[in-house]
Amino acid sequence: MVRGRISRLSVRDVRFPTSLGGHGADAMHTDPDYSAAYVVIETDAEDGIKGCGITFTLGKGTEVVVCAVNALAHHVLNKDLKDIVGDFRGFYRQLTSDGQLRWIGPEKGVVHLATAAVLNAVWDLWAKQEGKPVWKLLVDMDPRMLVSCIDFRYITDVLTEEDALEILQKGQIGKKEREKQMLAQGYPAYTTSCAWLGYSDDTLKQLCAQALKDGWTRFKVKVGADLQDDMRRCQIIRDMIGPEKTLMMDANQRWDVPEAVEWMSKLAKFKPLWIEEPTSPDDILGHATISKALVPLGIGIATGEQAKALQFLQIDSCRLGSVNENLSVLLMAKKFEIPVCPHAGGVGLCELVQHLIIFDYISVSASLENRVCEYVDHLHEHFKYPVMIQRASYMPPKDPGYSTEMKEESVKKHQYPDGEVWKKLLPAQEN
Amino acid sequence: MVRGRISRLSVRDVRFPTSLGGHGADAMHTDPDYSAAYVVIETDAEDGIKGCGITFTLGKGTEVVVCAVNALAHHVLNKDLKDIVGDFRGFYRQLTSDGQLRWIGPEKGVVHLATAAVLNAVWDLWAKQEGKPVWKLLVDMDPRMLVSCIDFRYITDVLTEEDALEILQKGQIGKKEREKQMLAQGYPAYTTSCAWLGYSDDTLKQLCAQALKDGWTRFKVKVGADLQDDMRRCQIIRDMIGPEKTLMMDANQRWDVPEAVEWMSKLAKFKPLWIEEPTSPDDILGHATISKALVPLGIGIATGEQAKALQFLQIDSCRLGSVNENLSVLLMAKKFEIPVCPHAGGVGLCELVQHLIIFDYISVSASLENRVCEYVDHLHEHFKYPVMIQRASYMPPKDPGYSTEMKEESVKKHQYPDGEVWKKLLPAQEN
Repeated sequence: MVRGRISRLSVRDVRFPTSLGGHGADAMHTDPDYSAAYVVIETDAEDGIKGCGITFTLGKGTEVVVCAVNALAHHVLNKDLKDIVGDFRGFYRQLTSDGQLRWIGPEKGVVHLATAAVLNAVWDLWAKQEGKPVWKLLVDMDPRMLVSCIDFRYITDVLTEEDALEILQKGQIGKKEREKQMLAQGYPAYTTSCAWLGYSDDTLKQLCAQALKDGWTRFKVKVGADLQDDMRRCQIIRDMIGPEKTLMMDANQRWDVPEAVEWMSKLAKFKPLWIEEPTSPDDILGHATISKALVPLGIGIATGEQAKALQFLQIDSCRLGSVNENLSVLLMAKKFEIPVCPHAGGVGLCELVQHLIIFDYISVSASLENRVCEYVDHLHEHFKYPVMIQRASYMPPKDPGYSTEMKEESVKKHQYPDGEVWKKLLPAQEN
Repeated sequence: MVRGRISRLSVRDVRFPTSLGGHGADAMHTDPDYSAAYVVIETDAEDGIKGCGITFTLGKGTEVVVCAVNALAHHVLNKDLKDIVGDFRGFYRQLTSDGQLRWIGPEKGVVHLATAAVLNAVWDLWAKQEGKPVWKLLVDMDPRMLVSCIDFRYITDVLTEEDALEILQKGQIGKKEREKQMLAQGYPAYTTSCAWLGYSDDTLKQLCAQALKDGWTRFKVKVGADLQDDMRRCQIIRDMIGPEKTLMMDANQRWDVPEAVEWMSKLAKFKPLWIEEPTSPDDILGHATISKALVPLGIGIATGEQAKALQFLQIDSCRLGSVNENLSVLLMAKKFEIPVCPHAGGVGLCELVQHLIIFDYISVSASLENRVCEYVDHLHEHFKYPVMIQRASYMPPKDPGYSTEMKEESVKKHQYPDGEVWKKLLPAQEN
């Protein structure tokens, strides 16, 4: 089924001026312009199918990621798609272990974001050629083929190829029923749209009231900039949603370890399910210390790194190396029975991550207990196949691909700095 | 003394075609072209003094770092140098916590390398204006001023401002004598120049014989690509240097955790002092596991991250956020009594790191026990103030600045892709 040689790779810097409305503001990122490096790959096949991939950024620096995508392009160009997906592990290794480029990573920061954008485009292309959404491509894939997409370098001490295969083979049992269930009911979501730090109390109340009306039962609030402010906003939201509904908190890496413990001890009375990224994302031992202090208060730690320092694992479709690396993380989470609650929002993160978490439920975790996927309600209108939320749940996408394709008109308008939107805004910002 | 407003920042992509000679080849980086993003800042002061900063790269991807330096430039331009160094902690925070840019880091990979290049230029400028080499600027600086250069975010659980001040105040005792000692004897070094993976056995033997003749007593060999090959090369080098001299090994992140333990158990008979970067630099718990297995064999772990998983700490002048972040790491190492053995080599790393380690001895650690600084003997000829090695020791630089300034002629010739060297090489490589 898979066909064609990659004949072209283009990448564009697309930015949405979200900072103007305070959307997306948190304790560390006070004025984000939600943006993406947007990759399109084309083949010489006659079907005209293109693969679209993104990675999410916050405005400034998107041009650096674009530059990194261009530095990776030679690994993709002139390759047969068949050869890429036929030895996806090898291709992944090549992309992430380029002898010269890995020095400026490895597998982190800018080059890893660029890797994600490129590989997301490959997965989109592959799924489109197969005529399936990515989640279904994965669900239907033979466990051995799935395992062949994973580079086990650096993880064999916690997950071997044999472990992975065993988990996936067990996941085959009851798969059909779970797929039916997903198609009928969708995957449970929570909303972060109500409580950005940039919103006034009035906006918060209004959005919260609307979300309750729309059937949302789980809410996330951004915290960490000012304790008094957090106390007031958490009180508002807890009062509005009542004692039974779920509240999560997100500090966006704002605190030191002792600060996190102190701050969260104060916010504990609002009964948060978790505190997300209380400190540096790289400080695993720090997270373990915080976790030890907060578990007696009934607060879990949610973050994106694997370790014993967390109670909820948040995968990210654009910060990890695409489906390939997310597969390995989903399998590790299953092995250690840590519930996965994906990070989403931004530009396109909801569109992508729904495929991963729906696959996870059907083929890996087989459980919805303590599991919920983030949802943020903006910028979906720029995507050709936007997410569909029903009764506070992600409904499985039916269109072929990874839901990554953006509307060409949106891309053109928001290209930085030459798109129509920025041509108007930039002179105004300079004054 | 400090004067002027930053009026210009330029950054160039400078590459040396070292891969042609196999110099610098290791198990992960098989064909490195040693390179640098080279930053020059100028002020509006009449002294004409420029600050030069570099970060080291391996060829491809240097253009991505250049792009990131340009993305950071607005934080530096039009600032008074006085204001920068007067609130260096604040400036460091601004540079590393830019609300939009930190998303593509934070404090890692490309943006952090770019941060290092920019800040290295600031330190070079500052020291030149003070008429002192950086090590001496640091040695003469009041402990409170030194502490004011450090951003304590994320580290207060292991090092507080009070801890730092106490260590530095204790370091004042005997400082004068240690400075005299350094000026007379220099800081002990080891050489990595003999045993790159790209070298033939004959080259290895020849370089090793010469190094012994030059008085070297400590040698590092690259391992990790092929066990039989490693056994043979380690045998050659151990036979040549004899049982008393020191041998270190460096796997450059090549192994998985179980692989590292197995491989090093085989190489243990060559009595290495340490194995450097056996696995992913980010896998702290993995390093701890390896460490536990190797310590009974008498092998320590050397790497660049702080944790209980290592016996030797390797700072890097261009991967950490310049002097500022290195100060915090030196102080943490002192607190936990972990010997610091800096990483050097590359382009300019020796030039820079000698300042840090000489300062460390005089003002922080006050000990040479188990301490030694890496040295690699190439590319120094491109620097205006190259390192001086005597009796296998780094002699303290006397010229003002951070020894970062490159010869303009070298920069021009090696600029990528338009310099003379690359104009000749690139068409040949394309054929």
